[in-house]
This record gives sequence, structure tokens and C-alpha cells, in this order.
Amino acid sequence: MDLVQRILAGDGRAVARLMSWVENGDPRAVAAVKALYPHTGRAHVVGITGPPGSGKSTLVDQITQELRRREKTVGIVAVDPSSPFSGGAILADRIRMQGRSLDPGVFIRSMATRGRLGGLARATNDVVDILDASGRQYVLLETVGVGQDEVEIVKAAHTSIVVGVPGLGDDIQTIKAGIMEIGDLFVVNKADRDGADRTATEIEMMLQLGRARPGWQPQVLKTVATEGEGVAALTEAMLKHQAYLEHSQDQGQRGAERSRWILHELLEERLIARIFETVAGNGTMEQLVKRIAARELDPHSAVEELLRQAGL
Amino acid sequence: MDLVQRILAGDGRAVARLMSWVENGDPRAVAAVKALYPHTGRAHVVGITGPPGSGKSTLVDQITQELRRREKTVGIVAVDPSSPFSGGAILADRIRMQGRSLDPGVFIRSMATRGRLGGLARATNDVVDILDASGRQYVLLETVGVGQDEVEIVKAAHTSIVVGVPGLGDDIQTIKAGIMEIGDLFVVNKADRDGADRTATEIEMMLQLGRARPGWQPQVLKTVATEGEGVAALTEAMLKHQAYLEHSQDQGQRGAERSRWILHELLEERLIARIFETVAGNGTMEQLVKRIAARELDPHSAVEELLRQAGL
Repeated sequence: MDLVQRILAGDGRAVARLMSWVENGDPRAVAAVKALYPHTGRAHVVGITGPPGSGKSTLVDQITQELRRREKTVGIVAVDPSSPFSGGAILADRIRMQGRSLDPGVFIRSMATRGRLGGLARATNDVVDILDASGRQYVLLETVGVGQDEVEIVKAAHTSIVVGVPGLGDDIQTIKAGIMEIGDLFVVNKADRDGADRTATEIEMMLQLGRARPGWQPQVLKTVATEGEGVAALTEAMLKHQAYLEHSQDQGQRGAERSRWILHELLEERLIARIFETVAGNGTMEQLVKRIAARELDPHSAVEELLRQAGL
Repeated sequence: MDLVQRILAGDGRAVARLMSWVENGDPRAVAAVKALYPHTGRAHVVGITGPPGSGKSTLVDQITQELRRREKTVGIVAVDPSSPFSGGAILADRIRMQGRSLDPGVFIRSMATRGRLGGLARATNDVVDILDASGRQYVLLETVGVGQDEVEIVKAAHTSIVVGVPGLGDDIQTIKAGIMEIGDLFVVNKADRDGADRTATEIEMMLQLGRARPGWQPQVLKTVATEGEGVAALTEAMLKHQAYLEHSQDQGQRGAERSRWILHELLEERLIARIFETVAGNGTMEQLVKRIAARELDPHSAVEELLRQAGL
């Protein structure tokens, strides 16, 4: 049975293999992802974002447990925009995966940035589609958020959860970077710490100050993820949002938004690849870089030169 | 006197006008930025990044004061990747700017994301070049970091400062997203809080675990920015790093890296713009988006179709 068929049958090893192809830019990936695409669109994708230290991973684990109790299958995609550096990321992932990896109903994948050439958002999207096509009912997409890419990744989810903690609520900066307008649900995690109520109130006030949205009204919830407190209520709110989407026009609009974004990401990647193929071999790129660094040539003129050479 | 001449003479109003052109994509911007480029490369660019609530803005204000005491001119660029939402960002900026705006030796500019079409990194780079050409000796580039774009922005600086706080040190996640490998200086701010020493030690340990770097050895410093504590030492360390760069090969390498990155960013932007010009008018894009959302067409095939239509 070929890889696509095995993925459609829910085979975890086949899923993992295609994900590796996607991450490594293996030429076989595109055909497989294309073949899977008509089988996507069934999973409910939940984006979870928040600053480092807000306890997102624990929360994701807890939501997963709640979904498993309801006999739902889950895929977890942890997007790590930081570069691989020593054992930190790997260790953290191992700690997490030990808890869940023996359950065939849960599939976990970590994705790290692939450096300057980008493509993280597009690769993440392919990975979500693979999980979707393999029959996962929920895909939890965790990002260390506040960056532009991460905002886009979470925006592309059906339900977006923004996580904060009481300690950070002191600072107006938090609210500013809180990605207020993309959240369907706001969580004040570590709510057993001082100031949890104040932070929750502040978020509610900010939501009221912000532009009124028709339809779904964002909710603010408190959790202590390490103790499992509030997680059932959060999961219920998430399911309520899912039910809401199914009966509203927002669903279609979100689908179109996600499609537009993905088209754009992919277009960018393909165009850049084409330019690099054209001029990479002849050393033009390095020459231009040197001249820019020496202030002999400005970057705008360099790009014009590149486009000319590539016949564009 | 034309705009370029006025900027070269250090005229703040001319600087602000060209920055607005850059941000709004005004067609006059490119010619002016090109003309300024040969006059750039003199400013020392310092990137300051850290999670929301770590007190970056206060730290930037304090470093600015230290530099002003040394009679250096300063440009501050605050990059805010979150979308404009209610009064939060504006309020915070006003609070900051009141302290510094009467000093002609300091120029402050906030930059927000311009949505899906990106270009924030490239626009930020143009703004840094404008400040450089206008004679600012130091450019402090503040980003709410952990996103991929923000990492790139800070990487492009001469000196990179990564800011953390004690409260976040509990979590291995912090280290993971701490952008460890890009920092020349690490700051534990709010060091009057419990756990500051432990966080500093943890960062030092992570640095030792990480791959050994030749040349400059990253330093870990403690500050209480709100009280100005430790800021003089931080500024000294920054100047020491600047002096180090001037006598090492790293300077040239960083220049080349920055040039490569900028070339790439700009190329991406121009290519995308070209495709949009070609197909935007005829409704192709929206049709493709609809078909992707309906799962009739996969994004990879849609991009192939777009490239075909654009004759690429």
C-alpha cells in the first residue's frame, strides 16, 4: 500500500514519514500532500499561543486528556521558532512525549524553524493537513506566539486560544503584544498566583475597548494547568466555539482566509526557490551581497539586478 | 533642499517623512533610500529582544540616557509585531515618548506589522538605514521577540541583547525560546525579584552547554531598569562589544549576513508584488482561494497555476 493510502488509513509511521519529507523539502512531499488534500477539512484545528513560560505545553497536554476522555483522536503540532540550541527543546519535548506517546490516539510532532529561507508556516500547514487527512479529529497547534509568523499560524486555526499568566499582567506591554484581536478564547493560566483576577479583568476590559466583533464573543477563562484546574471548562468553551462555527458564516470566511494565506506563503517560497536556482550557481548572489555590505550597491538596485538576470 | 539632503543634514522632520513613505509603500521611498545608502554603515545598531513584560522599553530608555550622557545621538525603533488593537500600543508609546521626545538627540519611531503582505523586516531595515544616514550614532532596535521575523531583525544588529526576567526562569520553555544563540549580551531584568541569581546561572549554564563560539563570549548581566540599576554596566558591556567588533573579523561577517538577509527579504517582496500585479485584476486569485477552501484544488497546484498565468 502506498504512503498516501497508509496515511488515509491512519498509519502513524506513514504520517511521520511524510512529515519528515515536508520538513526536509523532499521532492516526493508535494505529490503526496496534493493527493491528500481532497481528504482534508474534517479536523478541527485549535491554535494555542502565548509567551514563553505561560504553560502552553502543559495546557495542551491537559486539553488532550479531556479530548481523549471524550474518545476524540488528537494531533499535536508544537511549533518552535527558536533555533535548535543544545538540549533544551529536545529535553522539554521528551518530558512531554513520555506522558502521551503510548496512546495511539495522540500523535505529537515538534517543528523548528528551518532558518532564513523560511517556509515554517507553510510546512506547518502541510503537517496540519496530513494529520487532518489521517483522520485526527482535533489538531492542537502550539506556538510560542507574538511573532508575525506565529500570529498567522494561529489565525489560520478554527479556534484560537491566547494564553497569559498573572505575572505578566502588570505590564501594559503584555496587552499590546497579547494578540488580542485573534483570540476566540483567552486563558489566564497559573491562576493560583497573585493577580489572576486582575489580569482576567484587564483582558476583559481590553476586549470591550477593542472594536466590537459580530458573532462569537471572546471569553476569558482561568486555569491552573499543572493541577488540571479549569481545563474541563476550557475544553467545553472550545467545543462550544466549534459548534458555533458550524452554524455560522465565520466557518467559510476562516476557510477562505486560511486558503489565501497559504497560497501566499507557498507562492513566496516557490518564487524565491526559482530565483535561487537561476542565479545560485553563478556566484551572482554572493557578489551582490559583498557589494551591499561594502555600501557600493543598495539592496533595492541589487534586487533589480537579480530580477534582470533571472529574466523576470 | 531636497529630502535626501535634509536627512543627511540630520533634519528630524525629513527623517520622519521618509519613514512614513517607507511604511506606506510610497513609490518615492525607494529612490530616496537608494540615494541614502552610500551614507549608511556608520551607526552601531543594537537589537534588544525579549518576551512581553520583560521591561525592554524601560531598558531601552535607560540605555538611551546612558548614551546621551556620553553625548551620543540615538535613534530608537520599536517594532511591534502585534496588530494595532485599541489604545494599548499607542498609550504605551506616548508614555515613553514624553520622557524623551523633547531631546533632539533622540529620535523615536514605532513600527507595527502591515498585515499579511509582510515587509516589516524590510521596512525596519530601511528605517534603520535612514537613521544611520541621518547621523545617529546608535540605533536601538526593540522587538517583542521570539518570532522568526524578530529573530532575523535582531540577528541583523551589530550587538544583540536578549532580555529575560526571573519569573520566567522556572520554565525550561523559556530557555528553549530564549534565542540563546543570537545573544551577545543576556540581561536578567527585574533582578530585584526572587530567583534572579538562579535565572542568571541557568542562562550561563545553557551558554556553556551550547556550542562553543570563537571570539566574543556572551555575558549575562542583571538590571532593575525601573531603578536604573545595572544599566551603566550593561551600556559599558555594549560599548565593549562594539569595540570588539571593530577589531575582529566578525564585523565583516555580520555585515555580509545582514546584506544577504535584506537582499532576500526585498527579493521576496518584489516577486510577490509582481505576481499580484499580474493576476490581481482578473480575479484569478479569489477564484483560486475559493477552490482551495472548497478542497477542489490543493494550494501547490494553485501556485503552479498562478505562475503559469504570470508567465513565470
